[in-house]
Amino acid sequence: MTRRILVIGGLAAGPSAASKAARTNPNAEVVLFEQGEHVSYGICEIPYYIGGEFPEDALAAYTSQTLKEKKGVDVRILTRVEEIQPARRTIRVRDLNTGSVRDENYDRLVVATGSRPKLLGVPGEDARNVFHMKTLSDGIALKKYLQVEKPRTAVIIGAGYIGMEMADALRSLDIAVTMLHRHSLPLSTLERNIRETVRSELEERGVRFIAHTNTEGLVVGKELKATHVVTNNGTYESDLIILALGVAPCSDIAAAAGIRTGGSGGILTDNRQMTNIDNVFAAGDCCAVKSVIHNRNVYIPLATIASKCGWVAGENAAGGNATFRGAVRSIALRVFDLEVAQVGLSAEEARGAGFDVATETITAWSRVAKMPKNNKVTITTITDRASRRLLGANLLGKDGVVHRANTLAVAIQHRIPIDDMQQWDLAYSPPFTPLWDPILVAANATRKKL
Amino acid sequence: MTRRILVIGGLAAGPSAASKAARTNPNAEVVLFEQGEHVSYGICEIPYYIGGEFPEDALAAYTSQTLKEKKGVDVRILTRVEEIQPARRTIRVRDLNTGSVRDENYDRLVVATGSRPKLLGVPGEDARNVFHMKTLSDGIALKKYLQVEKPRTAVIIGAGYIGMEMADALRSLDIAVTMLHRHSLPLSTLERNIRETVRSELEERGVRFIAHTNTEGLVVGKELKATHVVTNNGTYESDLIILALGVAPCSDIAAAAGIRTGGSGGILTDNRQMTNIDNVFAAGDCCAVKSVIHNRNVYIPLATIASKCGWVAGENAAGGNATFRGAVRSIALRVFDLEVAQVGLSAEEARGAGFDVATETITAWSRVAKMPKNNKVTITTITDRASRRLLGANLLGKDGVVHRANTLAVAIQHRIPIDDMQQWDLAYSPPFTPLWDPILVAANATRKKL
Repeated sequence: MTRRILVIGGLAAGPSAASKAARTNPNAEVVLFEQGEHVSYGICEIPYYIGGEFPEDALAAYTSQTLKEKKGVDVRILTRVEEIQPARRTIRVRDLNTGSVRDENYDRLVVATGSRPKLLGVPGEDARNVFHMKTLSDGIALKKYLQVEKPRTAVIIGAGYIGMEMADALRSLDIAVTMLHRHSLPLSTLERNIRETVRSELEERGVRFIAHTNTEGLVVGKELKATHVVTNNGTYESDLIILALGVAPCSDIAAAAGIRTGGSGGILTDNRQMTNIDNVFAAGDCCAVKSVIHNRNVYIPLATIASKCGWVAGENAAGGNATFRGAVRSIALRVFDLEVAQVGLSAEEARGAGFDVATETITAWSRVAKMPKNNKVTITTITDRASRRLLGANLLGKDGVVHRANTLAVAIQHRIPIDDMQQWDLAYSPPFTPLWDPILVAANATRKKL
Repeated sequence: MTRRILVIGGLAAGPSAASKAARTNPNAEVVLFEQGEHVSYGICEIPYYIGGEFPEDALAAYTSQTLKEKKGVDVRILTRVEEIQPARRTIRVRDLNTGSVRDENYDRLVVATGSRPKLLGVPGEDARNVFHMKTLSDGIALKKYLQVEKPRTAVIIGAGYIGMEMADALRSLDIAVTMLHRHSLPLSTLERNIRETVRSELEERGVRFIAHTNTEGLVVGKELKATHVVTNNGTYESDLIILALGVAPCSDIAAAAGIRTGGSGGILTDNRQMTNIDNVFAAGDCCAVKSVIHNRNVYIPLATIASKCGWVAGENAAGGNATFRGAVRSIALRVFDLEVAQVGLSAEEARGAGFDVATETITAWSRVAKMPKNNKVTITTITDRASRRLLGANLLGKDGVVHRANTLAVAIQHRIPIDDMQQWDLAYSPPFTPLWDPILVAANATRKKL
C-alpha cells in the first residue's frame, strides 16, 4: 500500500522519522517540511563551532539534497506549516519565499515541530546583538557577529547546559564573560555539591558568575545594539548578549488541531508515538516523553530522545510496530576542564515523585593511582530505599566521567538493584580503570546507606 | 562469638577475604599466611612498572604492617601452608626462614592459594634470564636484570594478555622483541578480526611475531643464561626470555585435603564461596567461578573476580551471608596505542556452550566526527538468536573502548535483550560521545542479524 507520509520539522526527530518511514515503506511518498533553511544539523555542536573546535561544513548531517538521495525523503525548506486539519487529513503550508499558502494531504502525519527558546519578555530582547542558540542560523549569525564586530565582553543570561557551553566557547575566544543566573548555583537539576564545583570551575576560568539575578530589561543604543543588561542586582555593560534560558515545546498548531498536550505543553503520545488523533504521530522536543523511572510524562528536550522517538514514529507511520521504551534523561557536558554528567532524576525530583530517597557521594580514582591520566571522579547517587534501585546519579571529574554515566544510565533504565551493581564484573586495566571502578565504589557506599 | 579465621594466600583474594572477615567480625582473630615476602600487590601493574610508567613504591597496596594496622589482619609472610587437615581443623605451616613446621588451628579457613604460571616443560627453563610475571618478586627481579644487564633483545613466549603488555613495556625500553606463539594470531579468546588488528599493531610497533611456533628447548650458555630459543620454526637468539603462557590454579593442597576441584583444576565452591568441606571457603585464582552467562563453572583468573569472591568468602567465614553473583569475564588491555577489551564469551565458546550464535561487527566514531580526539571504535558482538541477548563482545580502538566494554558487561550480566539495548538512553555530548553511541550502532546492527 502506497502512503503519503508528511513530516513537520527538519531538525532531529523529523529527519529521523522521515528516513525511517521511507526505509520501512519504500513505496511511501515521504515529504518533510521545514520552516528554516537548514535540515538535520547538529545543534549541540554549535557551541563548539563558536569556540572554533568544530568546522562549519560539518554542522549539517544532511542537506535537502542528500536527504532525498540517501534517504528517499522529499524536503521542502522555508515552508511553514500553519495548520493541521485532521478531519480532512491535510496540513496548510506557507511558502516563505512567495507567501503563498496551499493544503497538502496526508495518510499519516508526523509532528516534529521541536522547541523554541524561552525569552525574557523584557524590552530590548530583539536587539541585533542578542542571540539564542536554537537553530543553525542562530549559530552562523553569532559566528559572523563575532568575526565582524569582535565583541570584547559578553553577558550570558541563564546557567543551564547551553549557558555552560557558551561560556566555555566565548572564554576560549578571550571574551570577558558575565553570567547572570536566577539561582545561587548553575545547573539547577544537579545536586548541590556538583553545582558548587561547577561554579568554582566557572569562576576559576574567568567567568563572573552573578547569582540571584533576574533581568529586568536591556538598554538598546545605536545600531540597534543592546549595551546594558539591567537586573535586580546591578546593571551590566556588554557587547554581546546570549540568552540561554532553556526551551519550551512548539505544540501550538498541534494543540489547535485537538492534539492533546500535557502539563509541560508537550504533545502526549502513546509508546508508539501516536497522538490522540488518528493517523497523527509526534516525536521530539514538541512532545512529552515517558520516564522509565516512574512511568510519568516528563519534558526532556534532548536530541538523543528526539532521534529515538522520531525513529519509532517514522516506522509506525509507515505501517510498522515499534515502541519507545522511555527516557532516563542522560546529559553530559564539558565545563572547561570538567566533565559533568547527569543521568535520571535529581534528589529533589525523586522526592517529588514520592520515592524514599537516599543520597551518597564518593570520590575515587578514574584509573589506577600513579598511572598517567589518572584523576578523581566524584559520583553522587540518588537511590530509592524501598526498591533499592538507582534513580539518578551525578558524575563530575576530569577523566572517564561520561561513559561511566552511561553505564549508570543502563542501571536506571533496567531498574537494577544497587546490591547487584556492587558486584558488576567490570574490567580492570591499569592504563584505563582501577581494580574497584568508581561505579563499584559508589554502589558499595550507597548500599551501606540504605 | 570469637572465631579464629585463617586465610591462605596474600595476593588478591586472600587480603580481600581477610580484611572483610575482620570487618564483619571485629572479635575474630584473622591470620593470613603468605609464602612469598610481599602481600596485597598489584600484579597487573607489573608490566607498567617494567615499562617505567608506574613507580615501584606504589606496587604494594598494603604491607604486612598496614594490613594489621588498617584492616586488623595478622600477616605471616614467608610462611608456606603445606597441608590442610579438615578433620582436626588445622593447617600445617612451614616457616621458610627457619624451616620449622607447626600446626595452626582454625574455626574457619579461606583457601586463596592463587595460580602458578604455566611452564614450557623443556630444558633450560630455569636459566636466570628466563622470567615469568606472576609475583612482585618476579617483577622486581626483571627490573633489576634490565637495569644491570641491559639486554638488547627479548623473546616473549606466548601472545596472551601478559605477552601483549610485556611487548609494549619492552619496546618502550627500545628492546628488540620477538614473540613466539602457538597460533596464527594473538589473544586466542578474541574474534579473528580483532586478533588480526592486534597482530598488525604489534608488527607496526616493531614486534616480530612468529606464528605456529612451539618451543622445544632453551640453549643455556655461560653464567646460566639462556642464549637461544629452539622451536619447530627456527632458533631465536635472545638476551632475555619472558614466559607468558597463562596460569593454572594452585589447588594441590586443597585437593589433597579432599576439597573438590573441577575440570580446570580450580576449586569448586557454592555461591557463598563454601567448598564441600565444612568450614572451608575458597576464593581467587585457585577456584573455578560460575559464569553468569550459562551458569557453568569456568576458570577466569582475574583480580577483579578474585577480589569480589574474596570479599564474599571473608564475610561468610566471619558469620555473614554474602553471595557471589557470577562472572562475566571482563578484560581490557592496552596494546601500544590500541585499547582492546573483551566481555563475556567468544563466539567459539558460545557455540560450544550450545547457543545459536550470531556475530556482527561495526565500526563507528567514538565522539562526534570532526571533534578533537574522535577516533574509530570497532565492536564485534556475539549474540544468542534464541533469547536475543548479548553473550559477549570484543571492542577495539584508540578512544573510549574500555568503558563501553563495561557498559556491555552490564548488559551481559543482566541478560538484557539486544532490542532493549538499541534503545538505551545514553548521553550525547560532542566532546565525549556521538548522537548514536557505537554501543547503539552495534545493538542496532546486531538486531538486524537476528
